[in-house]
Amino acid sequence: MTDRPDVLVLRKAAHGMPIEQYAAALRERLPHHEVTLARTPEQEREGIRDAEIVTGMWLTDDLLDEAEALRLFACGYAGTGHLPRERLAQLDVTVTNASGVHGPNIGEHVLGAILAFSRRFHEGFRRQRRNEWRSFETHELQGSTVTVVGLGAIGESTVNRLAGFDVETIGVRYSPEKGGPTDRVVGFEDDDLHDALAETEYLVLACPLTETTQGLIGTSELVTLPPEAVVVNVARGPVLDTDALVTALQRGWIRGASLDVTDPEPLPADHELWDLGNVQITPHNAGHTPEYYGRLADIVASNVRHVTESGEYDGLANQVPL
Amino acid sequence: MTDRPDVLVLRKAAHGMPIEQYAAALRERLPHHEVTLARTPEQEREGIRDAEIVTGMWLTDDLLDEAEALRLFACGYAGTGHLPRERLAQLDVTVTNASGVHGPNIGEHVLGAILAFSRRFHEGFRRQRRNEWRSFETHELQGSTVTVVGLGAIGESTVNRLAGFDVETIGVRYSPEKGGPTDRVVGFEDDDLHDALAETEYLVLACPLTETTQGLIGTSELVTLPPEAVVVNVARGPVLDTDALVTALQRGWIRGASLDVTDPEPLPADHELWDLGNVQITPHNAGHTPEYYGRLADIVASNVRHVTESGEYDGLANQVPL
Repeated sequence: MTDRPDVLVLRKAAHGMPIEQYAAALRERLPHHEVTLARTPEQEREGIRDAEIVTGMWLTDDLLDEAEALRLFACGYAGTGHLPRERLAQLDVTVTNASGVHGPNIGEHVLGAILAFSRRFHEGFRRQRRNEWRSFETHELQGSTVTVVGLGAIGESTVNRLAGFDVETIGVRYSPEKGGPTDRVVGFEDDDLHDALAETEYLVLACPLTETTQGLIGTSELVTLPPEAVVVNVARGPVLDTDALVTALQRGWIRGASLDVTDPEPLPADHELWDLGNVQITPHNAGHTPEYYGRLADIVASNVRHVTESGEYDGLANQVPL
Repeated sequence: MTDRPDVLVLRKAAHGMPIEQYAAALRERLPHHEVTLARTPEQEREGIRDAEIVTGMWLTDDLLDEAEALRLFACGYAGTGHLPRERLAQLDVTVTNASGVHGPNIGEHVLGAILAFSRRFHEGFRRQRRNEWRSFETHELQGSTVTVVGLGAIGESTVNRLAGFDVETIGVRYSPEKGGPTDRVVGFEDDDLHDALAETEYLVLACPLTETTQGLIGTSELVTLPPEAVVVNVARGPVLDTDALVTALQRGWIRGASLDVTDPEPLPADHELWDLGNVQITPHNAGHTPEYYGRLADIVASNVRHVTESGEYDGLANQVPL
């Protein structure tokens, strides 16, 4: 390897923010490294040939065919399911993800969603649209129970932000014996989950999509939730069964849902979820803030420095098991 | 005085919640006292004649004319400007208010309003109404400066709820030497206020309406705020100059405003504030939750017990200087 490996940035932008900003953030943090931005497919193909370190949102099989020296692919998303992971493993390429980049922004989104339903802002916006000054009753968050499924960076950031609100918190995670930042922690066993749901006013889904969490919240779980409950999904659409959710929202099994992710996604324009008055839909932009590239560059630059100093492409922050 | 003074509840309800619920909450807390609800003007006139302790939202001059034994009027609102205070002082009637009752609910409302603008929920609701799945950029609250004018129960409840959000806080109060829960505290002097406004992203107005705070935020103050700033008013409408605010919102001097109180109030249906896309208007219902009467009854029952034990109508919680 070279003393100071160059960094190649691929062209796909995240969240509609110019990718030039990401390259600039990396250059600022790595003044002694060459950071090259490949803005076209041709530049990507040429650049990846000798590149040891590549960072970007996507990495296609075709592009990987061209790589001859690749040691690290630093993915700009928290999820890496869209990457050719098996081939990367065969080629002994280290992969890192952007986990943690979203913590603050999605934590803020979740608190905003909980408070929007607590204060019934959707009803407020409806009255405002009619120029109608007419009081309406709201709910109170204080004293409620908030259950957070998944205690990774997003779950933890959510729980931290609930600190001042005088609520009970329950965390749901694979290894409850690890404990966590919530008042209680339970596992994914069906009985434990239903015990938690039975006393939950706000259910926050913040877990990765896995075999365990696919369809985790379906008809049976929605029936266990109290009718006052609100579901906030910032995980992945399929964690929450869409048909069961529509039924629950239509029949008043639960009070509402705030969905930053849906299944299918994007949500088709004729989908019935759009028109339910007790649903808030945001277009998977909970992680979408101007600070995204800066925080991503912090992780990647720190790893590049580690590689430069140690000569090892291992033991990196945010390394993904392949 | 009698050993266990009776309590008369007047008929006006708060926030559209049946006043019977308030009487019931008092009875639950004062099982050894007679709590009578006067549901009609006639019952009010008859009941107040011998009453030592009266509680309610309003107390008119006419009704006060009938009172012969009144020692305590426990007002159900935080503000007492609508009461005949001079006459109450002449008659040596002790007055208490409901200050603190609104703390949790309005603190939740303020955080909800801040996060709604941080996450641009108003834009989200607009796209949702069009069944439009299209990403948009949001702001990030973390790292911002939140300035809270007024460090009473509402200001403090707001600051407590900001604890987990990693923001800088500035408090504005009459006696800055008292300190407060914010990172910094300044007074109302013009230069200090403008220094604070110059670095404020979220300006929360949570002070009483006084000679000092009337028109506190006008053209000059709105010009000092950064263009990214959002004003949240949960104080009283006249603390914020309406014409200056409309100009600031139209010309982009500030990013937005969330108004739970307005001037005039109710806001007339043809007022231009309704149609500005960067304004959230709620109908003075930030303090409006089902827990309102319970918390009010806590204060009043505790004072009734104090009076019963001490025989003194002085040194009460929430006593208002007349």
